[in-house]
Amino acid sequence: MNVPDNALKLTVDAVVFGYRDGQLFVALINRKYPPYEGQWALPGGFVLPDENLETAVQRELHEETGIQLRFLEQLFTFGEVQRDPRQRVVSVAYMGLVRPTDFDIKASTDAQEVDWFPIDELPALAFDHASMLEMALKRLRGKLTYEPIGLNLLDEKFPFGDLERLYATILNKPFDRRNFRKKFLSFGILTELPEKSALEKGRPATLYSFDRHRYELARQEGILFDIK
Amino acid sequence: MNVPDNALKLTVDAVVFGYRDGQLFVALINRKYPPYEGQWALPGGFVLPDENLETAVQRELHEETGIQLRFLEQLFTFGEVQRDPRQRVVSVAYMGLVRPTDFDIKASTDAQEVDWFPIDELPALAFDHASMLEMALKRLRGKLTYEPIGLNLLDEKFPFGDLERLYATILNKPFDRRNFRKKFLSFGILTELPEKSALEKGRPATLYSFDRHRYELARQEGILFDIK
Repeated sequence: MNVPDNALKLTVDAVVFGYRDGQLFVALINRKYPPYEGQWALPGGFVLPDENLETAVQRELHEETGIQLRFLEQLFTFGEVQRDPRQRVVSVAYMGLVRPTDFDIKASTDAQEVDWFPIDELPALAFDHASMLEMALKRLRGKLTYEPIGLNLLDEKFPFGDLERLYATILNKPFDRRNFRKKFLSFGILTELPEKSALEKGRPATLYSFDRHRYELARQEGILFDIK
Repeated sequence: MNVPDNALKLTVDAVVFGYRDGQLFVALINRKYPPYEGQWALPGGFVLPDENLETAVQRELHEETGIQLRFLEQLFTFGEVQRDPRQRVVSVAYMGLVRPTDFDIKASTDAQEVDWFPIDELPALAFDHASMLEMALKRLRGKLTYEPIGLNLLDEKFPFGDLERLYATILNKPFDRRNFRKKFLSFGILTELPEKSALEKGRPATLYSFDRHRYELARQEGILFDIK
């Protein structure tokens, strides 16, 4: 059998989450060209012929937003026949996470508008990007319960309160502060640092960092972040 | 910006697992045409222009193997530039599961050879299909620890021993039989049936089935199958 004449186009799109001050954000760009001209969309674009998929998404993110990613993983491939009004375009969606210190978004070379939107105040999105975002949010919430993925959304050193607020924000439910702390520390994946921050309610707060080695061990054994 | 001339081809491939008598199997086809003529590969093929991705993988599986799937999910999209010697071909890989009663494989209309291979006795595979298989196995093992996905590999009604052997086989480690039973029953997702089987060591064994409603509840809450 020869290769059939079923050429189609392939794009990559990225759902990039950032967390700051108790809010979860997603990076969106405003489209300069049709279709969906003037509408907000996920950053992304066409995969070049000699380009691997992850290279393509990194390139598009860099060109359109200047975002420095902390974490990137493939999410899902969206291939509904009618998803692009131009022609058959299949898109490989990725999920990315950034730290608060990497929140700066630069205007792209195309001077395309780009901004962070709180996930509970989103504009209408182009294409099937709302579905991509919904799936990414589901993945993020799911992963939070069995992988310490949220640590990619925090600064290198953080007070415990930041971690708790992150979980409460993303999972959209309050936690008992003492239980949360006790349970999370029992996983043994955090390192208590000698330094203190002076940022929490005026009192110096102990800072923590994330122990990558112990995290990898915990991950291999399976861990359930079933914190009430 | 117009759509660039970066047409490429898209395929779907399926890693289909079946479990029987303490062994995990994968369905492979023997390729009739170049490239990799005469070599074993995952079932799959080109996506048609007017065809959704999941439709394509179901069609290809039906044409090539006659397999009745119990479960199908998208695994990962493989897009390395050089992965196909013909031209740029990106492939969306799926993972499928079948029940022992659906193990029959029919010769395809192309009279292509197709067979189940135990996963520890695999031939060399075409393309990057060994990577797809490895990723599917990792996904299956991972999911087994936080979703009762393995129940899609068992018959509708099964003695408890089958479930334990399934876990021991896929996770490649023995379990303490009493602990396994006690822990698994504590999840509350199995229904004990009034019927008995006469198949286990001559003694009639209690049969179980899987309670879909309680499983969905357990899944939403998060569940950890950390059985030792």
